[in-house]
Amino acid sequence: MALRLGVRLLMGCSLARRRPSLFQATCVSCRRKFTSHTPSLYLQASTDFNSFASRSHTCGELCSADIGREVTLCGWLQYQRQGLFVVLRDFHGLTQVILPQDEHNLALKNMLSEATLESVVLVKGTVIARPHGQQNPKMATGEIEVQASHSQILNPCKKLPFEIKDVVKKSESLRMQYRYLDLRSSQLQYNLRLRSSMAMRMREYLCNQHGFVDVETPTLFKRTPGGAKEFVVPTQEHGKFYSLPQSPQQFKQLLMVGGLDRYFQIARCYRDEGSRPDRQPEFTQVDIEMSFVDQAGIRSLIEGLLRYSWPKEKGSLPDPFPIMTYAEAMSSYGCDKPDTRFQMKITDVTSVFSAAQLGFVQEILNKPRGCVKAIHIPEGAKYLKRKDLDSMTKIIKDQYKQDVMPLVLKSDGSWRFLQKLISDELKKDLTDAMGAKAEDLILLAAGDHDRVCTALGKLRLDVACRLEECGVSLRSPTDYNFLWVVDFPLFLPKEDNAQELESTHHPFTAPNPEDMDLLYTEPEKVRSQHYDLVLNGCEIGGGSIRIHNADLQRWVLEHVLKEDANVLSHLLEALESGAPPHGGIALGLDRLTAIITGAPSIRDVIAFPKSFRGRDLMSNAPDFVSDEVLQLYHIKVRCPDSGN
Amino acid sequence: MALRLGVRLLMGCSLARRRPSLFQATCVSCRRKFTSHTPSLYLQASTDFNSFASRSHTCGELCSADIGREVTLCGWLQYQRQGLFVVLRDFHGLTQVILPQDEHNLALKNMLSEATLESVVLVKGTVIARPHGQQNPKMATGEIEVQASHSQILNPCKKLPFEIKDVVKKSESLRMQYRYLDLRSSQLQYNLRLRSSMAMRMREYLCNQHGFVDVETPTLFKRTPGGAKEFVVPTQEHGKFYSLPQSPQQFKQLLMVGGLDRYFQIARCYRDEGSRPDRQPEFTQVDIEMSFVDQAGIRSLIEGLLRYSWPKEKGSLPDPFPIMTYAEAMSSYGCDKPDTRFQMKITDVTSVFSAAQLGFVQEILNKPRGCVKAIHIPEGAKYLKRKDLDSMTKIIKDQYKQDVMPLVLKSDGSWRFLQKLISDELKKDLTDAMGAKAEDLILLAAGDHDRVCTALGKLRLDVACRLEECGVSLRSPTDYNFLWVVDFPLFLPKEDNAQELESTHHPFTAPNPEDMDLLYTEPEKVRSQHYDLVLNGCEIGGGSIRIHNADLQRWVLEHVLKEDANVLSHLLEALESGAPPHGGIALGLDRLTAIITGAPSIRDVIAFPKSFRGRDLMSNAPDFVSDEVLQLYHIKVRCPDSGN
Repeated sequence: MALRLGVRLLMGCSLARRRPSLFQATCVSCRRKFTSHTPSLYLQASTDFNSFASRSHTCGELCSADIGREVTLCGWLQYQRQGLFVVLRDFHGLTQVILPQDEHNLALKNMLSEATLESVVLVKGTVIARPHGQQNPKMATGEIEVQASHSQILNPCKKLPFEIKDVVKKSESLRMQYRYLDLRSSQLQYNLRLRSSMAMRMREYLCNQHGFVDVETPTLFKRTPGGAKEFVVPTQEHGKFYSLPQSPQQFKQLLMVGGLDRYFQIARCYRDEGSRPDRQPEFTQVDIEMSFVDQAGIRSLIEGLLRYSWPKEKGSLPDPFPIMTYAEAMSSYGCDKPDTRFQMKITDVTSVFSAAQLGFVQEILNKPRGCVKAIHIPEGAKYLKRKDLDSMTKIIKDQYKQDVMPLVLKSDGSWRFLQKLISDELKKDLTDAMGAKAEDLILLAAGDHDRVCTALGKLRLDVACRLEECGVSLRSPTDYNFLWVVDFPLFLPKEDNAQELESTHHPFTAPNPEDMDLLYTEPEKVRSQHYDLVLNGCEIGGGSIRIHNADLQRWVLEHVLKEDANVLSHLLEALESGAPPHGGIALGLDRLTAIITGAPSIRDVIAFPKSFRGRDLMSNAPDFVSDEVLQLYHIKVRCPDSGN
Repeated sequence: MALRLGVRLLMGCSLARRRPSLFQATCVSCRRKFTSHTPSLYLQASTDFNSFASRSHTCGELCSADIGREVTLCGWLQYQRQGLFVVLRDFHGLTQVILPQDEHNLALKNMLSEATLESVVLVKGTVIARPHGQQNPKMATGEIEVQASHSQILNPCKKLPFEIKDVVKKSESLRMQYRYLDLRSSQLQYNLRLRSSMAMRMREYLCNQHGFVDVETPTLFKRTPGGAKEFVVPTQEHGKFYSLPQSPQQFKQLLMVGGLDRYFQIARCYRDEGSRPDRQPEFTQVDIEMSFVDQAGIRSLIEGLLRYSWPKEKGSLPDPFPIMTYAEAMSSYGCDKPDTRFQMKITDVTSVFSAAQLGFVQEILNKPRGCVKAIHIPEGAKYLKRKDLDSMTKIIKDQYKQDVMPLVLKSDGSWRFLQKLISDELKKDLTDAMGAKAEDLILLAAGDHDRVCTALGKLRLDVACRLEECGVSLRSPTDYNFLWVVDFPLFLPKEDNAQELESTHHPFTAPNPEDMDLLYTEPEKVRSQHYDLVLNGCEIGGGSIRIHNADLQRWVLEHVLKEDANVLSHLLEALESGAPPHGGIALGLDRLTAIITGAPSIRDVIAFPKSFRGRDLMSNAPDFVSDEVLQLYHIKVRCPDSGN
């Protein structure tokens, strides 16, 4: 029995160190239930994982229904126990292999018990039942073992760059340098397989169920006017460059003009953001565009898409998804991608303070968008101490130039802070307005509406993290809160010159038809037909109904954005040539998969990610290239300092 | 009746000018048979083309089963006839819309009959039967028309860059400049939809049926050592560049080491070949790799893949595909991608000439690989005249330095050429050996085996084209001849230095196990485990079983290829860390789709292709970029002449 225990422990071994999303699966042969770490979407009864290969079964599929069967397994040597048995691993699971103990089969026994761990091995043998009491009900193959009759070392593992067992203590950079070893972990296997199967389901939904056409658009394109963050690619034409586009935006619209009607593509996109955490220079979006559609149509399409491709083990999704306006998101959550998994929303308490006629508050309220707002943290005082609050509010002050005042309601009705500044009546009014009780915390801010909201919104998220660190259960890993955010402003003042406007999203976004007249008079007040899809406080998608009228597009470019419309002349010409009304969306597949799998970074759902400095640590890309190559492309590297 | 005739003619109108592959489809509602130009794979009864959209039906789906139904159609105004009817077009077909003639509906009538052609229009109305005798049985909607009750011009077509009708006479560059108009043609619609649906079926086969995992690999990578033709991408790291890889070769092998077992990706690849006809700087391959597989396994996998994804209207495929060795392909067809749709194979007639003891031939035959070979063109003399033969053989002479002698067997048994040089006995022997009859043509060449075969192989293809130009039916557009070519040499002498060897394909290709010993003694004699898939004389795929043993890989790199193995140290390390035996293949999706659709160029199966100079004629890419951008990437453009 003790011997067998080792095997059970292997389930929690280093290669499975980052816990995959386990769920209850049912064996298709014997109907027994067991815990699986293979994505449910990937487990179709009709899928043959063994076709065309030397093995007869994977290491994860044999069960009591197979007892007596002659099988061939191929896998990695995961564990060896005193010449008695070994454990073979593949992407699908583990199988225990019993070594023969008779003199006759000494060579076979020695081969398997002496091979280095992680060697690749082929084993032939007979499936037998595990002795009574030694079954492992949690393991897919826990009822059986394979009595080996033949084996072959297909490739000895000569050298591992580090002890696999120690991998858990290695830095991410070491894991990325030896990514091919990291990929053997059950978590990465789960993540990549889930990603593949979700993408496949999305394609089935779009292509087979709704007649979308998968069209590949170029990645060697022309630089978008003003489009920062686009990689350039030198060509053999002197002085001319392609650009790697940030999205297929122009192409998808041109496909609509071309009558392709329903387009999708799981598209590689590029963005050169230098060193930014959790960004990748290349990323993937599920890119969709269709003609003759409105916002509600796109929302239904996407909700259906997500429901269809959603892994069973992650629960079900609401129908329809909730919708919130941008204005509501900003005033209640202080950001345009609210995390609605928990409360602590921003409450307007302006009227409470307005009535109190406090001098220093009144001054603020007299300004055009002056207000007082607060968030209420039930039992907050239990977890957040003075120094926590000080450091959090200091960060906010530095970042947003906004003072935030913490208030703690003591059990005797008195307040820990501000005790002397605020009258008892105001205290009571505020407490009532917020529904606060003893030991609750209130974070109060007065000032310009947008700044107050943004500051409190940021603080709301910071507080949530702090509370969770203290063990408060706010957001469950099984919560998936989708939310549509709509009615964004079409234009925003430019950051560097508030007198001029820029597109909130991009210049092809259509205005809300109700605000059409404002476009020519007060464009800053026009709402757009843009929509964002938010999941657990992350923007995982965005899109819009586009401008299909050339005159309108030209007006936006020339009169509102003051841009040279000529650089987009091909698009304007296209709009004049019979462009259908159209709209679309793009979903970030990396981020979506990361959230679903609970991965801490999108690097955990990408097979070969770059480091946050944009480096491939395995191959050491990017790298120097020879001057011969640079000459072919008519470029040279500038001297480091001179700029020449 | 005359009025209606116009509509029928529209089926052959300019927008459908390049004939799509038409086939017999069956209406899912009324079971009537009609001619369709929508790919069969795309016509699934369960596909809803109208979900989420303003229309109730496409312009290609209404039939007699719909009579009486209130419908909403959206489409392009294709044709107007004297205020009586208009024809609406979308990707799915054409529908005739009858305009009301009563005073009451004058506005509706005028709106539709006066709108410019190619305007985008929404029409509501009732489906009615066409008057008796006016049905068009060849048209999907030929039994009905729609009596309009409401209409809206969704977007007027203001200006077309050229008369759509004249498009047929426009150059390809004009078509590419206005690609969004060209895309409206039924041929391009067919091509792109066929491509999409074939890719979808391939994914179903790989992912759902055989458990392959769709993994996206990076396109920003490191330059392959010695890998010419790779675009470079400057980065913000001074002097360092990414490279756009020609294929995911290294990544797919590393995925196998990572235990991903069965990988596929429809992958974007890049190759900078400057100006070459029918090549694109970016192209797409169906990239596949699996572990624990042999050559036969990969062949079965791919044959199954093609059978599963093959469009019904293109007939069925053989099972299994024929196989030919490289040696046989070279000696019988003079190339490694034989077009087996027609005969005229290369015949060895060395023994015939050897016996004849002709002085000038004997000299050739005394050399190591000297031979005499011939191809036989039945009735060739009817189509190929002296001057044709002269010009063809001159090209061969210029290109391959190989003399080719044409022989025509006259009806009296005499020969038109060489009459005096060859004895009657030799003539008879040769005629017998070739099975030649009067008016047949024999092309004869003597010399070095490889050169003779290559020259005759080229001539064989040239002759086939000439004969087809003369109306001889050699290759039917419905022939799809697949062929595996195997047993390539693992190494070939370098072109610039025949004393050194280079990989015939790439250095990761495994040797044939039977030739293993030769690797260390006579590597030039080693056959590889590479295989090519040929369709109608075009290479549409290639792959191999890879080297999984690090020592063997190092030997090949260092001792045979004399390369610095250090640049591939990450791959060698990976092979030492438990790499399973593995192999794979890549299919060229562009070329495969082009052959299936009968497109003259791969540009006709790519939505937005580049010109053969690598230019996007619509957006004018590549283009100049600002010095500010170049500074960000630490590069500058060299002066045109100085090289600095």
